[in-house]
Amino acid sequence: MRIAVIPGDGIGPEVVHAALPALDLLNHELGLGLSYDVFGWGADEWLATGVGLPEGALDMLRSEYTAVFLGALGDPRVPDMAHGREILLGLRRGLDLYVNHRPNQLPDGLVDIYRENTQGLYVGVGGTVPQGGGVGVAVDQCVYTRQTVENFVRYCLDRIAAQGGRKVTLVHKANAVPHTGRLWQEVFREELSRHPGLTGTDEYVDAFCYHFVRTPMRYEAVLAPNLFGDIISDIGAALMGGLGLAASASICPETGFGLFEPVHGSAPDIAGTHRANPYAAVMTLVLLLDHLGHRAAAAALRDSLDQAARTDATTPDLGGNGSTEEFMVAVLDRLPMA
Amino acid sequence: MRIAVIPGDGIGPEVVHAALPALDLLNHELGLGLSYDVFGWGADEWLATGVGLPEGALDMLRSEYTAVFLGALGDPRVPDMAHGREILLGLRRGLDLYVNHRPNQLPDGLVDIYRENTQGLYVGVGGTVPQGGGVGVAVDQCVYTRQTVENFVRYCLDRIAAQGGRKVTLVHKANAVPHTGRLWQEVFREELSRHPGLTGTDEYVDAFCYHFVRTPMRYEAVLAPNLFGDIISDIGAALMGGLGLAASASICPETGFGLFEPVHGSAPDIAGTHRANPYAAVMTLVLLLDHLGHRAAAAALRDSLDQAARTDATTPDLGGNGSTEEFMVAVLDRLPMA
Ligand SMILES: CC(C)[C@H](C(=O)O)[C@@H](O)C(=O)O
Ligand SMILES: CC(C)[C@H](C(=O)O)[C@@H](O)C(=O)O
Repeated sequence: MRIAVIPGDGIGPEVVHAALPALDLLNHELGLGLSYDVFGWGADEWLATGVGLPEGALDMLRSEYTAVFLGALGDPRVPDMAHGREILLGLRRGLDLYVNHRPNQLPDGLVDIYRENTQGLYVGVGGTVPQGGGVGVAVDQCVYTRQTVENFVRYCLDRIAAQGGRKVTLVHKANAVPHTGRLWQEVFREELSRHPGLTGTDEYVDAFCYHFVRTPMRYEAVLAPNLFGDIISDIGAALMGGLGLAASASICPETGFGLFEPVHGSAPDIAGTHRANPYAAVMTLVLLLDHLGHRAAAAALRDSLDQAARTDATTPDLGGNGSTEEFMVAVLDRLPMA
Repeated sequence: MRIAVIPGDGIGPEVVHAALPALDLLNHELGLGLSYDVFGWGADEWLATGVGLPEGALDMLRSEYTAVFLGALGDPRVPDMAHGREILLGLRRGLDLYVNHRPNQLPDGLVDIYRENTQGLYVGVGGTVPQGGGVGVAVDQCVYTRQTVENFVRYCLDRIAAQGGRKVTLVHKANAVPHTGRLWQEVFREELSRHPGLTGTDEYVDAFCYHFVRTPMRYEAVLAPNLFGDIISDIGAALMGGLGLAASASICPETGFGLFEPVHGSAPDIAGTHRANPYAAVMTLVLLLDHLGHRAAAAALRDSLDQAARTDATTPDLGGNGSTEEFMVAVLDRLPMA
């Protein structure tokens, strides 16, 4: 099993290189048979060569790797994160990573958000009508194929049911965005009928956000099209207590390929100050290990992360006075094999 | 000045008829010269006749009225609120009410949200490609004309500047939805250059929602395209402490026509129990009076509403033990002319 590591920009390399020793230790002690290679894709390469995702990268990843561990992308020198978009959206589409999963560990329990990750308003279809030297009309299309919605909903419901889940909420806006909205509602109803153990409800995205902020534990597992998923998973991160804690997995159920990343950005303002919080990067490795079937290793890492997070070795954003490295020492010390 | 009153469904008629005596009193005592007519549009009429917005309604409103005061629309007997959509979206488009304003009175201060109300994903343009007896592909288009974006941004910035505002944030998603996103960014930059007193920033909608939930006072005035505005104004209502408090104004700057409504829905579950909270309906009248230029009346009503809200005559949702009617007595008693 080979993992492609993309440290990326800003604090990305810092949290990735801080977290990797935990993977090394587990790999060695438990004989997981993992290996990894590091790729320097990111803002520097983009600025030097104009390339975000090098030619052949997708083929290489597809044939030689099972997963990507990504740090963070984003650099003030690159407007609108053009390189990050090329890399992230390129990987999502190119590797058909159509399921994005973000477990939101909230103060009162877990809410799992599943976001469709490849279509909807992200298809990049649209254009502009010029008028008087400028843009007169601009259009972006929201496109969903039944195939993708079906694959997505089926995979998520199967997984939720297998984990003993009971309640699933579909987020949509069929009252204002009817064509894609109704396709989602229809597929959701059909697929639910194969799972008598699951209760499905659907909510308009505005109403959902309202209730999610006020009473998040009203939800257990949430399914959302791409853009709504983007928005509500960041609300989830806010409710968790900050981006410092959140990790996400983007996977292709058919090939098993997965892209794992912390939800936080590259935080250029604190890069190099040893204050970057590696919690989310370690949590990302928990998701990665779990996805690769290394349940015990994932559970051990998660336990030591949780324990370390209750000490004052946490980084300042979590109220502690530790550095990136000091927090990682606290995590590693608590691994059972340390 | 004539106002068209549309009580609507569920608790709509209850809160509208509870709030109107406050308007009557101010109108009479201050000689505001207002009159109103009540229209029975809503679920009952839709179920009886299949009509949401009667033919000729738009022309009539345009020529004979200056404003609409609407209660709430929504009834469990009408799937997906088809009648409400016909009425609400019909009024917004038909009367070109392209500016939706929601003042969010949060615990630590005010955040004004301005939502474009007529275009974007709400244009209703799209369709489906049939495949094997079902829908194979579904498309909804997000369309913005420069004219509408310009009119909207210009009106909002002028208004914010006139009220002494300093900071404006544009919410968009130009990194994933580029064509309309860039049009908004471009127009925003251009219009800002006419207001040296305003500082403009723009944020991706996901990042905005994250920060809005965690530190809402980071924002002062927020501009958003239609769907993002729909979502973030409901987050604003959640941060205010509930839909029971929020009111909104939809206006056409050119004609001055305005549609004023509480943000809450028709709450069929509590209709008829005298527990409906009329706070938002009264706040709606405050916005309406203000819009019509009756500043003193608006301020007086707002003051007595605020005072009444600090008594235990509030309805149960606000922690009090008053009925709809008892709360209104508390409001009316506190009006200076009572
Ligand atoms: C009913 C619905 C179409 C409407 C909207 O999305 O605009 C509602 O949520 C609102 O905000 O008034
Ligand atoms: C960078 C951006 C295009 C991306 C998205 O919207 O998907 C980001 O917000 C994310 O969630 O990974």
